[in-house]
Amino acid sequence: MTKSSNSEQLNLLKTYFNERKKEILEEYFTFLKFQSVSTDPTYRSQVLACSEWLTAYLQQMGFDVQTWQTSGYPTLFAEKLDAGEKAPTLLLYGHYDVQPVDPVQEWSSPPFEPTVKKGEVYARGAQDNKGQCFYMIQALKGILDREKRFPVNIKLCIEGEEECGSTGLAQLLQEKKRELQADYLAVVDMGIQEKNTPSITLGVRGLVALEVTVKGTHTDLHSGSHGGAAYNPIHALTTLLASLRDSNGKVKVPGFYDAVEPLTEEEKKIVAWDFDEHAYTSSFGALPTGGEQQYSPLERTWIRPTLEINGISGGYGGAGVKTVIPAKASAKISCRLVPKQTPDEVAQKVKKFLIENAPKGVSIEVQVYPGKGSALRARPDSAIARAFSCAFSEVFDKTCSVIYSGGSIPVVAEMAKASGAEVVLVGLGLPDDQIHAPDEHFGLDRFEKGFLIISRMIALLSTL
Amino acid sequence: MTKSSNSEQLNLLKTYFNERKKEILEEYFTFLKFQSVSTDPTYRSQVLACSEWLTAYLQQMGFDVQTWQTSGYPTLFAEKLDAGEKAPTLLLYGHYDVQPVDPVQEWSSPPFEPTVKKGEVYARGAQDNKGQCFYMIQALKGILDREKRFPVNIKLCIEGEEECGSTGLAQLLQEKKRELQADYLAVVDMGIQEKNTPSITLGVRGLVALEVTVKGTHTDLHSGSHGGAAYNPIHALTTLLASLRDSNGKVKVPGFYDAVEPLTEEEKKIVAWDFDEHAYTSSFGALPTGGEQQYSPLERTWIRPTLEINGISGGYGGAGVKTVIPAKASAKISCRLVPKQTPDEVAQKVKKFLIENAPKGVSIEVQVYPGKGSALRARPDSAIARAFSCAFSEVFDKTCSVIYSGGSIPVVAEMAKASGAEVVLVGLGLPDDQIHAPDEHFGLDRFEKGFLIISRMIALLSTL
Repeated sequence: MTKSSNSEQLNLLKTYFNERKKEILEEYFTFLKFQSVSTDPTYRSQVLACSEWLTAYLQQMGFDVQTWQTSGYPTLFAEKLDAGEKAPTLLLYGHYDVQPVDPVQEWSSPPFEPTVKKGEVYARGAQDNKGQCFYMIQALKGILDREKRFPVNIKLCIEGEEECGSTGLAQLLQEKKRELQADYLAVVDMGIQEKNTPSITLGVRGLVALEVTVKGTHTDLHSGSHGGAAYNPIHALTTLLASLRDSNGKVKVPGFYDAVEPLTEEEKKIVAWDFDEHAYTSSFGALPTGGEQQYSPLERTWIRPTLEINGISGGYGGAGVKTVIPAKASAKISCRLVPKQTPDEVAQKVKKFLIENAPKGVSIEVQVYPGKGSALRARPDSAIARAFSCAFSEVFDKTCSVIYSGGSIPVVAEMAKASGAEVVLVGLGLPDDQIHAPDEHFGLDRFEKGFLIISRMIALLSTL
Repeated sequence: MTKSSNSEQLNLLKTYFNERKKEILEEYFTFLKFQSVSTDPTYRSQVLACSEWLTAYLQQMGFDVQTWQTSGYPTLFAEKLDAGEKAPTLLLYGHYDVQPVDPVQEWSSPPFEPTVKKGEVYARGAQDNKGQCFYMIQALKGILDREKRFPVNIKLCIEGEEECGSTGLAQLLQEKKRELQADYLAVVDMGIQEKNTPSITLGVRGLVALEVTVKGTHTDLHSGSHGGAAYNPIHALTTLLASLRDSNGKVKVPGFYDAVEPLTEEEKKIVAWDFDEHAYTSSFGALPTGGEQQYSPLERTWIRPTLEINGISGGYGGAGVKTVIPAKASAKISCRLVPKQTPDEVAQKVKKFLIENAPKGVSIEVQVYPGKGSALRARPDSAIARAFSCAFSEVFDKTCSVIYSGGSIPVVAEMAKASGAEVVLVGLGLPDDQIHAPDEHFGLDRFEKGFLIISRMIALLSTL
C-alpha cells in the first residue's frame, strides 16, 4: 500500500466518523452514565447494568458474547472469527468499570452526567476506560458496517474489575486459556505523553496495595486527661509511614529493590526520555520532586518501583478543633512494581517492616488487598507494535515514539502469558485527563483519533 | 461545728436529694437533650435553645440572670448576693456547650438521648460539663429551698464556648471585671483519679491548637502515571509530623520547653503521685507509653507540656483501594501547656518549625485556631481549697488529696486574674468517662456526691 492510498483510507474513515458522530456520542454518553464503580459494593447494581448494556451492544454488532461470571463482576468475552484459520487473531482488552468519584464536591459537573466543555467530555470514565473502550468498539463497528467482516479474527475481553485489581478475570485466565488464545494482544487503556506526540507503550508497572491500621486504646480519649500518657496512634502511624522512605525518596523497606533490573542499553535507546519540567509544573501546579532523587522523573515513573500512601485517616476531621487522642489511625499504601518484583513478596516485605517497627503501646494490623499484578515489558518489533506504530504515525502525521507507563493494568502480564500473544499497550489518554480524580475528562478530538488508529491498525495488521 | 453535726448535715442533704431525685434527673436529661455542640456551626440553634432553657431555669430559682452576648455563644452570668457586703463572694464556673459526637456510629445509644445503664447516664455532656454543672445548680437550688438564702454571695458564670476555646467569654473578661469580682472561684469541670479517692485539683494545662495543610499538585493524581514524579502531600505531612517528636517522645520544636519550670519541692510533696499502670492498661486497653519517656505518666499528663495530633486526613478513605496521589493532606495539632508557656509563642514556634521543614515541591499552610488559654496553678491553702477539701473528705469519708489536671479550661487562668479570686478546680469526673469520645457517661452516684459536696462546701466556706 502506498502512502497516498493510506491517506485516502484515512480520509474515508474521517468522513465515515463525522457522518455518524452524533449517534456515536449519544451512545458513548449512555455508557458513561452507568455508575459502574467496582471498588465500592454500594454501586453493584449499576456495574451489572453497565455490563448488560454492553453485552447487548456487542451482540447487536454481530459478536458472539460470553458473560464470564467471576467472584466479582463479569468479564465480557466477545469473538467474531470471520477471517478464517489462516488469518491472525487479535485480542483487544478494555474495561467497563470506573474509579470512585470522591471527593465528589470537587467536580465542576456531576461525574455521571457527561458534560462537554471546550471539546472535552467531563465524566468519570470519560477516558479511563469507557472513552477508550468505546472508540475501539466504534472502530470495529465501522469495519463491519463498511466491509461486513473483519480482515483479522477479533476477540474482545472487556472486564469489570480493572479498578479493583481484576481479581475475577485473573482467576479465569487458566480456565479460559483456549478462548483467549491469540497472536496479538492490544491493551487499549493507555496514553500518550503530549497531545501532538504519538506513541505506543511497551511496559506497565505492577501493583500491590495494603492497608495498615494502628490501634491504641479501646476508645478515643481526651487529649488533656490522657495527653502524655496514652500513645497516640496518629503519632505511631506518621512515624511508621515516615520511616518507609529516606530523605532522598528511597524506600527503606529491606529488600524492596532486590529484584529490580535496569533497562538494557538497547531498550534505553529507543525510548523517548524527553521531559519538560516546566510544562509539568505548570500543568500540575507542583514540581516533580517525588520519588528517588537520583533518577529522572520519567525513570521514576516508568522503570522504578514506588511506594505511595494513597489515603490516611485518624481522629477528628470535622470543622474546628476536637482535642482527642483517637483509638486508631489507618493508611492505604500501594506499591508500583517493575519486572521481576512479585506483588506478594513486596507486600510481605512492607508488612514485615511495618509490624517490626511499630512502637510499644500500640498494636498494628496490616491487610494486603487481593487485587495485584506483576509488571509487563513488551517487544518493540512485533507485528502488532509495528501496525500500531504506523497507524499512530499516519493519524498524527508524525513519527510514533516508544514510551513506558507508570500505571498498572494488573491482569495484563498474566493475560499476555495466557493468550500467548505479542502485546502492545495503546491509547489516547493524556497525563492531565485527571483519571482517578475529580473532573476526569477526554477530548472528542482524541476520541476520533482513537477511532481512526484502531481502524487503520486492523487494516495494516492484515497486510503484515 | 463538730464532726457529728457535719455528718448530721450530710444525712439531711442525702434525704433531701433522694426525695427529689426523680424530678432532678428529669431536668438533667432535659438539659442533656439539647445538641449544644459549639464547635460545629450546624448546631447553632440548639446551642442557643440550650442557653435560653438554662436562663429560664436560673431565673426561676431567683437568680438575676444576665445574658452576655459574645462573638460566638452567650455566657450566662447569674448572681444572688443575699449574704451582704461583709460575707465572701463565691464565683462558680461551668459550661453548657458540649463536644462533637462523631464517630457517631460508635455510640451504643444515641448521644442526645440520655440512657441509664448500670447506674451510669450515657449521653454527650453527661459528665462534661452538663452533669457537673447541673449537680452544682441543684445544690444551690437545695440551699434556697431549705434556707431561702445563701450564706455567702453567689455568682454563676456558665459559658457556651468552652469546647471551642471560650473565645467570647475571654473577650468579655476585662469589660465584666466588676461583675466577676469575687473572693473565691470554683471551676466545677474537673475530676478525681479514682472512684473512691476524693481530690481537689490545683492546676490545669493551657492549650493552643493548629491546623497544618500540605498541598502538592492542583488536583488528585493517578498514582501510576504520577507515582515517583509528584511529591505526595501525605508523605510530606507524615514526614513533617514524625519530625515533631524524637524517639523518646520529646517535642523537637526549637524552644518548645524554654519556659517550662519544674514544680517546687513543696508543691511536689503534697501531690498524690500514685499511678497504677496495670489499672490504666486494663481500663484503656493500651500501655501509657505516650509522651516523654523520662517522666512518669502522671508527670507527663499533669505538669509537662505535650504536642498531640488530634486528626489527620488526606487521599482516599472509602472502601477498598484508590490508587491516587492526593492534592493535599492535613492534620489538626494541639499542645497542652504548663505555666509560663504562652499559647501564642508556642503556636508560632510550632508553625515556624512546620514551615521551615516542609519538603521542596509542596506548599504548606498553618492556621492557629482562636481558642487558646494559658495554664493555671492554684494555692493549696486558700479558704476555698480548704472548704472543698473538707467537703470531699466528708462525702467520701476519706482524706482528700491534691492532684493536677492534664486538661485545659482555656478561660480559667484569665478569669482567675479578672475576678481577683483564689481558685480551685473540682469535679467528680473519672478518667474513663469517655468525655470527648463515643459513649460519654457519668455515674448517678457521682451526681449525688457532687450535689452533697457543693452543698457542704458552701456551708463550710461561710464558717471559715
